[in-house]
Amino acid sequence: MKITFLGTSSGTPSKTRNVSGIAIATESKKDWILIDCGEGTQHQIQHTKLSLKKLSTICITHIHGDHCYGLPGLLASAAMSGKDTPLELVAPKPIQSFIESVIKTTDLHLGFKINFHDVTKVEKLLISNEIEIRTVALSHRVPSYAYIFEQTSFKYKLDLKKLEQKQIPRGPSWGKIQSGQDIVLASGETCLADDFLIVEETSKKIIVCGDNDDPRLLNIEASDADLVIHEATYTKEIAEKVGTGPQHSDAERVACFAQSIGLPNLVLTHFSPRYHDEIGRPGSILDIENEARLHYDGNLYLAKDFDIFGFDKNNRLILEDDND
Amino acid sequence: MKITFLGTSSGTPSKTRNVSGIAIATESKKDWILIDCGEGTQHQIQHTKLSLKKLSTICITHIHGDHCYGLPGLLASAAMSGKDTPLELVAPKPIQSFIESVIKTTDLHLGFKINFHDVTKVEKLLISNEIEIRTVALSHRVPSYAYIFEQTSFKYKLDLKKLEQKQIPRGPSWGKIQSGQDIVLASGETCLADDFLIVEETSKKIIVCGDNDDPRLLNIEASDADLVIHEATYTKEIAEKVGTGPQHSDAERVACFAQSIGLPNLVLTHFSPRYHDEIGRPGSILDIENEARLHYDGNLYLAKDFDIFGFDKNNRLILEDDND
Repeated sequence: MKITFLGTSSGTPSKTRNVSGIAIATESKKDWILIDCGEGTQHQIQHTKLSLKKLSTICITHIHGDHCYGLPGLLASAAMSGKDTPLELVAPKPIQSFIESVIKTTDLHLGFKINFHDVTKVEKLLISNEIEIRTVALSHRVPSYAYIFEQTSFKYKLDLKKLEQKQIPRGPSWGKIQSGQDIVLASGETCLADDFLIVEETSKKIIVCGDNDDPRLLNIEASDADLVIHEATYTKEIAEKVGTGPQHSDAERVACFAQSIGLPNLVLTHFSPRYHDEIGRPGSILDIENEARLHYDGNLYLAKDFDIFGFDKNNRLILEDDND
Repeated sequence: MKITFLGTSSGTPSKTRNVSGIAIATESKKDWILIDCGEGTQHQIQHTKLSLKKLSTICITHIHGDHCYGLPGLLASAAMSGKDTPLELVAPKPIQSFIESVIKTTDLHLGFKINFHDVTKVEKLLISNEIEIRTVALSHRVPSYAYIFEQTSFKYKLDLKKLEQKQIPRGPSWGKIQSGQDIVLASGETCLADDFLIVEETSKKIIVCGDNDDPRLLNIEASDADLVIHEATYTKEIAEKVGTGPQHSDAERVACFAQSIGLPNLVLTHFSPRYHDEIGRPGSILDIENEARLHYDGNLYLAKDFDIFGFDKNNRLILEDDND
């Protein structure tokens, strides 16, 4: 799975960061999933290789505008780009009313069907026969959810030992078996492909969280996750000044949680626009990074708009492309 | 009046042009008016000197998304920026339902009042005691309107002849009269300031049009306008290929209209994203400009995002700043 950050600012866009939006594409890149859709997400997508026509699923974590006000324009542009395949929309129920009202009041004609899934009722949703989606309820001013994306892939390798034992000669027969076709030996005996293949199962579990002031709610699901993407709106110092009203997390809180469960990969995002991007000048995003590193010694990134992440062979998250 | 173009693309944003948005500020820059608010308008505003706190009025020409989907985010960000003065919203009635639904479904709390004005019922709306707004119905797939902004300003000059006749000495007395204060002469006689001032009335009339396939609907109002801002979505050739369904204007149609009424200043905008900005490569925005110049010999501009226009002393529109 490849993860592209389309927006990493909280509340309002800044000059360097848009509001929330994250894309997850499978390796096959047949289609992709969008998590949250702040205003301007369609503009950001124009600067990536993602195609609105191939967008299969949108998951909205909660109803706040910086996570959903880009939906009307994105849906309109997807329709204008010729999208005609159904779109799965997983979201809190009011998002359905929001979209229905937009369609009714603004003469919006979509050439594709939207299948709405109430986030409170999603148990196991299978997307594109590849990715299973579940949810965990979080703690925020309004109902907010984490989406769990689990992908199990199977690789088939030739069982060289058995091929040798059966004296099946290297050549076209091996190719057939590799591709799952049974073969018939010169003796007339049929060999089933499955008997000569070793199945390697690999799975990947990614959790993308909505706004949340209590990371411990992820204790169970995150314990075997490969990656958690969590908000860190403030540093602890600023969070204490702001008070508990907004119900956001600070870097220390998320880092301590990640450390406590031995999480291998953590990406922080959704930074208050008060943190600027001029590293070196006080009050930059580096304050959040430094605070997080103090409490978490796993593989940590602070997302920037247009960062693209993948996994290496050891399941370590790597930055494949960034916006520098 | 200063006019800033925030978006000049039609339908969908392009990499170089956002969807519709135009700002009109008075010379005093006390507050400003936004006409249309496509998605990403608040992002564009961040790259100008305009402040959301000082936005007094929004006029929406019609309900299509590329003219209004930026409203929810812009209102939310205005509230977060601390705006607490009322906002006048002039728009087709469904826009009111759209905003009400957004407020209801997305936990949006605005710290300012929105005074909604149904565009079909606006006769003469006075904004900030300075600018009078009227409307003209246009012709499009949905009801669409042109907004007429008329500003009358008064300049007071000293009547030197009368001052001399009355033997009022140059000095503090002249200053008082200039600022409108009556004075008492050494003789005890009171001189009314108004008797020694010459009033110069100047007025400016700007028409900003929504999508429209029949510019002749502006015949009467545009005949004494200083400036008309009109869509020219296509060249004539492409408009004929596209057909009459979308009900847009082409460059020739608008240019011929402007020529027929002797319009002094015309700005074209709302260009189909099919016209790119790489002048020199076929299919650029230059095709629209060339077509317009062929039929209109007045002062013509094709707007670009972030262009700022003003008027010189001869009421000729001038480009004060652009995005190059």
